[in-house]
Amino acid sequence: MNGGSLFKVARFVYKFGGTSVSDTARMKRCAARVASAIADGHEVAVVVSAMGHTTDELIDLAKQVGHEPDARELDALMATGEQVSAALFAMTLQGMGVLARSLTGAQAGVSTDGHFGRARVQSLQPELLVEMLAAKVTPVVAGFQGRAMQDDVATLGRGGSDTTAVAIGAALRVGEQGGSCEIFTDVDGVYTADPRIVPDAVRLATISYGEMLELASLGAGVMHPRAVVFGEKHNVPIHIRHSQHSGIGTMVMKETPEMEDNVVVGCALKSDLGRITLRKLPIEHGVQATLFDRLASGGVIVDDIIQSEFGENASVAFTVEHQDLGLVKTLMQQVIDQLGQGEVSIDVGLAKVSAVGVGMRSHAGVAARMFRSLSDVGIRIHNINTSEIKISCIVDRDEAQRALRTIHDAFGLTDIRPVAPRAMQVPA
Amino acid sequence: MNGGSLFKVARFVYKFGGTSVSDTARMKRCAARVASAIADGHEVAVVVSAMGHTTDELIDLAKQVGHEPDARELDALMATGEQVSAALFAMTLQGMGVLARSLTGAQAGVSTDGHFGRARVQSLQPELLVEMLAAKVTPVVAGFQGRAMQDDVATLGRGGSDTTAVAIGAALRVGEQGGSCEIFTDVDGVYTADPRIVPDAVRLATISYGEMLELASLGAGVMHPRAVVFGEKHNVPIHIRHSQHSGIGTMVMKETPEMEDNVVVGCALKSDLGRITLRKLPIEHGVQATLFDRLASGGVIVDDIIQSEFGENASVAFTVEHQDLGLVKTLMQQVIDQLGQGEVSIDVGLAKVSAVGVGMRSHAGVAARMFRSLSDVGIRIHNINTSEIKISCIVDRDEAQRALRTIHDAFGLTDIRPVAPRAMQVPA
Repeated sequence: MNGGSLFKVARFVYKFGGTSVSDTARMKRCAARVASAIADGHEVAVVVSAMGHTTDELIDLAKQVGHEPDARELDALMATGEQVSAALFAMTLQGMGVLARSLTGAQAGVSTDGHFGRARVQSLQPELLVEMLAAKVTPVVAGFQGRAMQDDVATLGRGGSDTTAVAIGAALRVGEQGGSCEIFTDVDGVYTADPRIVPDAVRLATISYGEMLELASLGAGVMHPRAVVFGEKHNVPIHIRHSQHSGIGTMVMKETPEMEDNVVVGCALKSDLGRITLRKLPIEHGVQATLFDRLASGGVIVDDIIQSEFGENASVAFTVEHQDLGLVKTLMQQVIDQLGQGEVSIDVGLAKVSAVGVGMRSHAGVAARMFRSLSDVGIRIHNINTSEIKISCIVDRDEAQRALRTIHDAFGLTDIRPVAPRAMQVPA
Repeated sequence: MNGGSLFKVARFVYKFGGTSVSDTARMKRCAARVASAIADGHEVAVVVSAMGHTTDELIDLAKQVGHEPDARELDALMATGEQVSAALFAMTLQGMGVLARSLTGAQAGVSTDGHFGRARVQSLQPELLVEMLAAKVTPVVAGFQGRAMQDDVATLGRGGSDTTAVAIGAALRVGEQGGSCEIFTDVDGVYTADPRIVPDAVRLATISYGEMLELASLGAGVMHPRAVVFGEKHNVPIHIRHSQHSGIGTMVMKETPEMEDNVVVGCALKSDLGRITLRKLPIEHGVQATLFDRLASGGVIVDDIIQSEFGENASVAFTVEHQDLGLVKTLMQQVIDQLGQGEVSIDVGLAKVSAVGVGMRSHAGVAARMFRSLSDVGIRIHNINTSEIKISCIVDRDEAQRALRTIHDAFGLTDIRPVAPRAMQVPA
């Protein structure tokens, strides 16, 4: 079977998202890719998400029966979506003459910390997977789930199937076996910016885990930040590519020295930000702590603290994701009631544009270049936030798309120098 | 909670079929019954089937991806239907303030022999169920499934949720705890005949396991024969009743002496029979064995062997269920090819009417009464088949409904003397 292949045999994880397996016709195309890699002699473990809108439909049913469904029951319900996909995918492979077997997350050895709805992978026992691969039986694993206490099932929260795939990639040591974790999705890789907004954006051949993490955290879809963190920790090469066409995508990998040649590799835009401003707060010790403790206990992630002025009264403003605005307003009114004074107001007209690149660390004047380019086209910057490899500016939402195109241009990303991935198998 | 109740506290299994939980509104009505029994101080373990047409939809998906889906994968797929119901039902109970927790079949302690698609319950470890009931947490068990080897899931085949319910009833000793296994369905009990065909049929207060088994095997819906056998073996009182209205139904129980007072308690009609006739077979030793071995290996259940004449050539005829006719024809053609001679023909115009009752054992002339009643109205009997408590006649399908009404009348079933159940809790 492998005699005529030009490639060295390698071991892969193939992960297919919900859009890629939304109907049985698409599922067959995905299965054909797996069958083809196996025919080339490779070993493949498959991870699947729930079909298309299954998850939404299940959530809708849960809402019909209860106001705030119990997290354990919600997980028992949701986990069935991926189990359906896994069984159907295994049948599809079998129909193509490939030995295959579906596994629940627990069967595949995924153990979690048991926090229903947002569980973290605690360990992965790969014995059964390794045994199956040795016996030429392709495991098809239900993503997004793992074992909790008492044989319960817990789901991994948003982007959970990506985490399952990377965790399996780590446990199966795909990197050392010449392979990678192939994330098949509905885009053909990671771009220097969202091509719908920046038409001359280009696809990156490679990106470092750190850069990918910043872009993912800035809402540049494609992959969930937690899966990227997991990949970096265990050094799993992650290949992001399109499920319905062939061709290579973007390899997320360990940083290499030549990556620093590019100052910036990507720009991102987050336009679903709201600003909360609190005014006339008492000047007391611990006011800010009270405020942000309350936000944290409500599970709200504060994006940027925009300003914090103290005069006669204290005032503070910060941004949060749009979806959290209602909750935040309630929480802040509680704080004001507790403090005995203050006013809360909400502003939804903001956005954040960012530039990301490991090259920033070794190049001077990167921030200045970004600010000047925005200033030259008359865009006002409300706030600046930086990390070692990222610069973000809060701007008016009306000007956000123009800001993104301006930055992309300023850093010459259309002509970015590609950094080639290390020698690596990439099955068609 | 229990102080004001007039009832002694008892332990029940409540089983809700697919029609009873086909949408969340119906599910709420079912959950309200459970909540009410618990408010009365009773202990209830719930068993649920998949919602409405879920099973059919999953089978349809399986057909889209493979010709003959693997039995293990089909079970992994199908088992999700009951898991969805169980989680939603538990949420519904929680929404009503009842502590509840969904369990897969495996979690509930159901172990099977591992024959995918038609597994038998091998053991039931009730420790977790007992523990939950003691802690006032209502277990909601996914029916139709149990554990197979390597933490796989196997389904119990047709009527599997009934078997789950009765098996749990046995393990929880509901009979000894003053309760029963309540099978909630879309009819309000077992009738002397199908009321759609015999308008003056009456509901039976009680029926023995043996009678119920005969009626169930004759296609009188309501309950699966295997569940009845299980109930008899472990002496589990089974109460068949309507899920959407209150009131008692029919109690399936151990035979009592007064049950023999009624010669016949029920009449049944099976109209989906086909007759296969094989002619011009060679007269050889083992021809019939070859033939029925082939049918058995194809999983076909032969209903009645109608005739078996031997002259110059052998010929044999038998009835099978309609759905098996295509397969049977193929199998029989193979036998004929192997034997080198013979002809096969198929006749679909037949039906079977039967009368069932434990009283037959102690009353003479029962068969004669049945034959004479049919003869008096000019219905021709093609074949007769009897057991200790059953008489069946094969008649032309066109006359089957008239035959059923005739028998029902002949045995005076409209005025049947009710046999009261033993003193027993029956929650509204």
